[in-house]
Amino acid sequence: MKTIFKNVTLLQSGFPQGVSYYVTVTDRHITKISTECPDTQGASVVDGQGNILMPAFYNAHCHAAMTLFRGYGEDLPLQRWLEERIFPAEDRLTYQSVYTASKLAIAEMLRGGVVSFSDMYMFEDAVAEAVLETGIKANLSRSLVSFDPNVDVASDSRFAEARELVKKYHNADDGRLKIDFSLHAEYTNVPKYVAKIAEYTASQGLRMQIHLSETEKEHTECMQRHQKTPAAFFCNLGVFDAPTTAAHCVWVSDEDIEILAQKKVSVAHNPVSNLKLGSGVMPLSKMLKAGVNVCLGTDGVASNNRLDVLREMQTAAILHKGVMRDPACTTATQMPALATVNGAIAQGREDCGEIREGARADLILIDRYSIHNMPSYDDYALLSYSAERSDVRLTMADGRILYQNGAYTLIDEERLRYEAREVFAHYFD
Amino acid sequence: MKTIFKNVTLLQSGFPQGVSYYVTVTDRHITKISTECPDTQGASVVDGQGNILMPAFYNAHCHAAMTLFRGYGEDLPLQRWLEERIFPAEDRLTYQSVYTASKLAIAEMLRGGVVSFSDMYMFEDAVAEAVLETGIKANLSRSLVSFDPNVDVASDSRFAEARELVKKYHNADDGRLKIDFSLHAEYTNVPKYVAKIAEYTASQGLRMQIHLSETEKEHTECMQRHQKTPAAFFCNLGVFDAPTTAAHCVWVSDEDIEILAQKKVSVAHNPVSNLKLGSGVMPLSKMLKAGVNVCLGTDGVASNNRLDVLREMQTAAILHKGVMRDPACTTATQMPALATVNGAIAQGREDCGEIREGARADLILIDRYSIHNMPSYDDYALLSYSAERSDVRLTMADGRILYQNGAYTLIDEERLRYEAREVFAHYFD
Repeated sequence: MKTIFKNVTLLQSGFPQGVSYYVTVTDRHITKISTECPDTQGASVVDGQGNILMPAFYNAHCHAAMTLFRGYGEDLPLQRWLEERIFPAEDRLTYQSVYTASKLAIAEMLRGGVVSFSDMYMFEDAVAEAVLETGIKANLSRSLVSFDPNVDVASDSRFAEARELVKKYHNADDGRLKIDFSLHAEYTNVPKYVAKIAEYTASQGLRMQIHLSETEKEHTECMQRHQKTPAAFFCNLGVFDAPTTAAHCVWVSDEDIEILAQKKVSVAHNPVSNLKLGSGVMPLSKMLKAGVNVCLGTDGVASNNRLDVLREMQTAAILHKGVMRDPACTTATQMPALATVNGAIAQGREDCGEIREGARADLILIDRYSIHNMPSYDDYALLSYSAERSDVRLTMADGRILYQNGAYTLIDEERLRYEAREVFAHYFD
Repeated sequence: MKTIFKNVTLLQSGFPQGVSYYVTVTDRHITKISTECPDTQGASVVDGQGNILMPAFYNAHCHAAMTLFRGYGEDLPLQRWLEERIFPAEDRLTYQSVYTASKLAIAEMLRGGVVSFSDMYMFEDAVAEAVLETGIKANLSRSLVSFDPNVDVASDSRFAEARELVKKYHNADDGRLKIDFSLHAEYTNVPKYVAKIAEYTASQGLRMQIHLSETEKEHTECMQRHQKTPAAFFCNLGVFDAPTTAAHCVWVSDEDIEILAQKKVSVAHNPVSNLKLGSGVMPLSKMLKAGVNVCLGTDGVASNNRLDVLREMQTAAILHKGVMRDPACTTATQMPALATVNGAIAQGREDCGEIREGARADLILIDRYSIHNMPSYDDYALLSYSAERSDVRLTMADGRILYQNGAYTLIDEERLRYEAREVFAHYFD
């Protein structure tokens, strides 16, 4: 299978703006980037019409099935929101509702140029089936919790479920689907369990997803409980010996940032969710200066209410300037990496996230001619400040076009809408 | 001229969600709201297909012609940005470039559901022509500055220009176009001039637009210069005796907020611009508690880079929760008023901004069935958190449809694009 993009400019460091390229994709990979027309024999040619071809977006922290709870239980204090709305709603989840809600989430992500997401939730087998069907990539993880200090890890049913997921799905479809391990958070786990799971994860060569220092309360209570920060807690118990993605990291000390940098922990920044839940603002500039691999996540829809990585990037692009009161503290040029290659690194996909020969073809086409993108003196400014999700014209993952000009290639949208409405209509009966 | 919207739900306090209405528009006004089908004789019927009909958006602070500078000079410290990029660029402005750039701005606003904007800039006669042509509403003002303490106001050429604008355009097309007065800011004006302009504005029954307390520097320097805050400075000189819209108000004291509330000053909150320029975060909750009429503005494109009032509303809806660390400090239900009726009040358009019989028909239709709006348990949450600009299906101002399903009715988009590119291509030659 061969696709050639013609008449595109590239948003990729190393390539000058304003130059028109041909990009050839053979099967799953970018095989040629040229200014001369390559051999088009047997190829499907996509005319970019002068638009921007760039690496696709990665959503580094998500709970996809929470699309079910979009707009349900807004504007409540965090504890009431969780205890009165979200936890009871989650108790009703089934394989079928998670499957349908995840597929809806995937459809939303694909139309916004997201080709991969990291997920922590339950019924992840249902999410896995939705991923395999729709062509998107994902690192899925069964969220693990433990409250008994003397927990018998070997007989823990969630741990068994997680191992089962690995057996059944890890590296399915040439690595498109990966299974990670996940410790939900410090405040939902006991040290004994954390240490065992950490050891197991590292021994299996798997990756880890955690929530880390999302709220001040979490930070303060962890200090009281363990006389250390959540980052130090996880680090000491060996969690970071497996490649880890830590979501949120709003309440981290300078020493925590050092730990995250040294242990090569990827930090999933979720600016919209952190604002909406009143958690605060992550110290982005400090992390970037310390060399932390910062990527972007949407978190679940219940606290967002979109799965829109472009919006996360654009929010990050202005938020830190405002809070630090320094318009130069982040730049348009540095933001796209957070939404693309840094997310791929977080997922252990070293051959993804960039436009270069040999890389996997995870690509999106951005309409530069929308009224709200005119004029466009600089493509990085266009992407970081003016473009919007509806400017995504095409989404390709692993060389396969999954979305183009409003239509999905592997998702039957009518059926998805019908099934989703059926689920929503009866969910809270 | 009669238009009937059928099969719409209303996002308007006083109307229950989930009920399907007919809304009849006769000439410029909403003449009937009913659950029964009205007389359709001679009417053009718009099938809302179950979507949300709501009051259109008002952009309470804008410099429309700055679309010319979208993406030009990003990520610089404020003074360098102004002195090295914006001021030299503004020196090149002409009637023609302001006209074309304003028309582009208007096209962008209309597709985002914005039916009216308040503008402070130069060549406002060019903006006025663009407004009259395109069907949008506006309160335009020639920005006034004065640096000589002994300025002779009577012979000031900008003042003369402003009076000329009033004479030529104020209340044109049944009040669709209004001319306001504008004192650029405290730091660009001397007290004598401010007092004279304030007196003139009030005596003519006109309205005032000002920049107020945008940056900490402005606040501190005003305290040094006048031993009072910018709000107290303007208040003491009589500026607030004319109905005033004050943009930004980031650095206001509790006493300033009292002044703004008492003098019924409308505050145009510009969250995106304030963040991007590193100015800080306006104390929204305090202002709302004090009873200030808070509306929303985009500011100019150079510091945004969009003219998207929905995005301003959605940014405000999460930003203050995050900065105050209180997810309940603002609610989805209270946000739409900021983007609609409060903006109409700021512009002195008391018969606008609401869906009620007798009000002017400034209406937009929002697609509730977009993938990213499913499910929709609550229309206020949908609008405040999940909807995006591309969900605007139709924009009507004063009873006239100006934009519908991607097409403009009074703007020749091809011609606008052509003319805009011509201007951009040679602007910095």
